[in-house]
Amino acid sequence: MASIFTKIIRGEIPSYKVAESDKYYAFLDIAPLQKGHTLVVPKQEEDYIFDLSDEELAGMMVFAKKVAKALQKSVPCQRIGVAVLGLDVPHAHIHLVPLQQGNDLNFSNPKKEFPKEEMQACADLIASNME
Amino acid sequence: MASIFTKIIRGEIPSYKVAESDKYYAFLDIAPLQKGHTLVVPKQEEDYIFDLSDEELAGMMVFAKKVAKALQKSVPCQRIGVAVLGLDVPHAHIHLVPLQQGNDLNFSNPKKEFPKEEMQACADLIASNME
Repeated sequence: MASIFTKIIRGEIPSYKVAESDKYYAFLDIAPLQKGHTLVVPKQEEDYIFDLSDEELAGMMVFAKKVAKALQKSVPCQRIGVAVLGLDVPHAHIHLVPLQQGNDLNFSNPKKEFPKEEMQACADLIASNME
Repeated sequence: MASIFTKIIRGEIPSYKVAESDKYYAFLDIAPLQKGHTLVVPKQEEDYIFDLSDEELAGMMVFAKKVAKALQKSVPCQRIGVAVLGLDVPHAHIHLVPLQQGNDLNFSNPKKEFPKEEMQACADLIASNME
């Protein structure tokens, strides 16, 4: 069965899309740690990030860098934190989280909620800052 | 002035070395979240990971994958978590942390301490599992 992320990539489940290439897709986490919290996923459905080929993994990180640069221009933050946990959805994903301090990347923190319009505006702003 | 990680790479400060290539260096974090918690750094001194060139960043991630595979063979865990915070030492570094559950990657958790002999044995075991 297709993973929830594959359904998002296919457009079967709506998402706040930030960026897309032929191999990767980026969209806002709907349960964000911080405003602008973005997920980067490979279109190829692979559970564990370190089971991706060297080429796929390298390409994913370079794509994530482009998204991180756009994110940093879009949301006030010191820099963009990176996390891969991979114990929930069985489709590899990189979390990109705008950080003001180290504890902003703490997944035990309560998740934030923003109105739909604010999420869409945030995604649109990040997308507009992609080079 | 050379960063603390550059001093470690040069051998001016001792470390529990796990792996080394011409461009990257991996060693145990001396304040680990979990046993086997490893740091991967580029030999090139760059503060922010996303300021590395695409090539350097891609190579760093592929090197981290090799270390993660060896780490997973060495320490009981479900998989290896990845984190980049980058708000402390101004020399880009990827944390590789063996996870049993998501909260194992929580940097607010108390750091663990192991005797020197145990740290060295752990580093040696990971190094021996590098392919």
